[in-house]
Amino acid sequence: MPRIIPGLFYLFLCSMSASNYSYSKLLDFATTIFKSIGCSQPHAERAAKALLAADLRGIDSHGIARLSGYVRLWEVKRVNATPQIKILHETPSTAVMDGDSGLGLIVAQEAMRVAIQKAKTVGTGWVSVQHSNHFGIAGYHAMLALEHDMIGIAMTNASPLVAPTFSIDKMLGTNPIAVAAPAGKEPPFVADLATTTAANGKLEILQRKNLPTPSGWVQDENGNDSTDAHILKKGGALLPLGGDREHGSHKGYALGAIVDLFSALLSGANYAPWVPPFPAYVPMPPQQPGKGIGHFLGAIRVDAFRTTEEYKKDMDHWISGFRNAKPIQGQQAVLVPGDPERIASEERLKNGIPVHQDVVKDLHSLAEKFSIAF
Amino acid sequence: MPRIIPGLFYLFLCSMSASNYSYSKLLDFATTIFKSIGCSQPHAERAAKALLAADLRGIDSHGIARLSGYVRLWEVKRVNATPQIKILHETPSTAVMDGDSGLGLIVAQEAMRVAIQKAKTVGTGWVSVQHSNHFGIAGYHAMLALEHDMIGIAMTNASPLVAPTFSIDKMLGTNPIAVAAPAGKEPPFVADLATTTAANGKLEILQRKNLPTPSGWVQDENGNDSTDAHILKKGGALLPLGGDREHGSHKGYALGAIVDLFSALLSGANYAPWVPPFPAYVPMPPQQPGKGIGHFLGAIRVDAFRTTEEYKKDMDHWISGFRNAKPIQGQQAVLVPGDPERIASEERLKNGIPVHQDVVKDLHSLAEKFSIAF
Repeated sequence: MPRIIPGLFYLFLCSMSASNYSYSKLLDFATTIFKSIGCSQPHAERAAKALLAADLRGIDSHGIARLSGYVRLWEVKRVNATPQIKILHETPSTAVMDGDSGLGLIVAQEAMRVAIQKAKTVGTGWVSVQHSNHFGIAGYHAMLALEHDMIGIAMTNASPLVAPTFSIDKMLGTNPIAVAAPAGKEPPFVADLATTTAANGKLEILQRKNLPTPSGWVQDENGNDSTDAHILKKGGALLPLGGDREHGSHKGYALGAIVDLFSALLSGANYAPWVPPFPAYVPMPPQQPGKGIGHFLGAIRVDAFRTTEEYKKDMDHWISGFRNAKPIQGQQAVLVPGDPERIASEERLKNGIPVHQDVVKDLHSLAEKFSIAF
Repeated sequence: MPRIIPGLFYLFLCSMSASNYSYSKLLDFATTIFKSIGCSQPHAERAAKALLAADLRGIDSHGIARLSGYVRLWEVKRVNATPQIKILHETPSTAVMDGDSGLGLIVAQEAMRVAIQKAKTVGTGWVSVQHSNHFGIAGYHAMLALEHDMIGIAMTNASPLVAPTFSIDKMLGTNPIAVAAPAGKEPPFVADLATTTAANGKLEILQRKNLPTPSGWVQDENGNDSTDAHILKKGGALLPLGGDREHGSHKGYALGAIVDLFSALLSGANYAPWVPPFPAYVPMPPQQPGKGIGHFLGAIRVDAFRTTEEYKKDMDHWISGFRNAKPIQGQQAVLVPGDPERIASEERLKNGIPVHQDVVKDLHSLAEKFSIAF
């Protein structure tokens, strides 16, 4: 695959066999579904907004396409629709939160609220979460800090799909790291990255199209490089960012491990291969050492370091410096982290969100199940 | 290059044309040199220990080989041997530190001391540093937290050698991230990684041997993939971790950018292409927006989250789980971040540190300059 605009290329792949739905229609539908499984009105609204943020930002794998997955987790009693979220232990700048098996979409927002509150008081706030479920896209939770002129950080561990360097065992999830930093006149800096060469969602898109993966994304059951997008079902694994040792896969592995330590070793959640799987039909790993899956949320008050004015002036200068860096001839302009997702958001708010026909079917089934309209 | 034990392979390359010196001899020599440029006895000892930690841990590019580089920076008055290091602003969990142009080797340790103190009081401590110089290996500073049963974090920005995805301009340094986490019976987890496919030190080793780089490490002046280890002198650039967009270079770029934001945008240090170069003969970039180079140091008290006992039990379980993960047939055992450096330390403490003949010459010149023995 040549060096084209990969984000847009994937959006294009996604949009094949898809129909467009307005953001507000999908948001209302997701809210209704979350209420149908027993969520309170505010919880349902908050969960739907976090879920739809993925669709808006062009990360189709993590949005409305997963709605039925969350419902199935509730059906097998792995998701609690009325969680008693509570703080188990805290200091002025830290807390451990028990998500009580709630939707990660809600639990992570509650954890970020606590982190922001602590940052207001002592400069920074850090909340490690146990006993939670998948929280959607990390970037959404990190971005909650922006309106407070804070830098937001969000991480989560996830079910094991990734083999560490030199291994054939799947020991880590795609364990994303998101950092959102406010700017002045420029839009904020928003990095949101799986610590693998490619996120599982990218793989799923290629699976639907029966296209091969580039080399360096996955390995087969024996640890050989593979280009089979279906290899995870055949004992294969996703590769850490870097792909192989020569290209720094030990760094991607270390980054995924750091996410696991912050999210689970600090909170008492499950870690490494014991993290509960997202698909409800996959049995829970035996002898789990912790509770649920783990997240880590942080908030850093900018003016706990410098005046917000000085920081924002430099941040605007930083951002415009990168955006105006000299591009490679024949390629696109240099992007700042968050640019592709912001562009997708603007476009999709205006023109609607493309929903794959398989997902549309899924949403119709959900509507039928709960006797509501889609 | 096949999948061999790359760390050991590089150590082997380094050890060609090298003589072995004992750790204590090199430590004494470095201490004497730092005193010769005017450092106090405690500062000289602390700087030498941080510098030699690189040699011990097998990161030869950042150790005694750089001693003459620090001296040259002092000669051109870019390094202040008697800095008045001070806190410019602070909250209970944060501080901004002015390194007063001191050796980063010392300034970063002072910043970590403050971070640890704050973590004792409010759970975590975070210090962003301006007006500093190169601090050696990030891992050393992160590891200072370990004896306090804290997780240590260290980052620094560095002179621009790295082109962001789609660009030919060198906008970022190799901007490393280090995270050191204590364990119980197991040795600690210590990740220390440049946010590029390969650190500049790896490139320097290939330059000395006139060997090509693997693909994905560097690009030429036009942004084409290159295998020329000397390409940086010809307008080329190091590539962010991932190598190209298809393999996630936008993630390596984002990680390097995050290090820059934490180290410089929060502190008022220089950022992006304005970070001062390490070689004293390279002129300072014009119109610098900040002061010196920037670091970011963090300390997280484990028991601000869980009891240290619970955490350490899980950490030992985590580490042994990874170390016992099934290896790819014919390859080495799975490593935990920090393993190769710990093994190198043990071996080099016993058998001495191999110093390349060019570096030996350099040390003899230094000894002559200050009329001391080597």
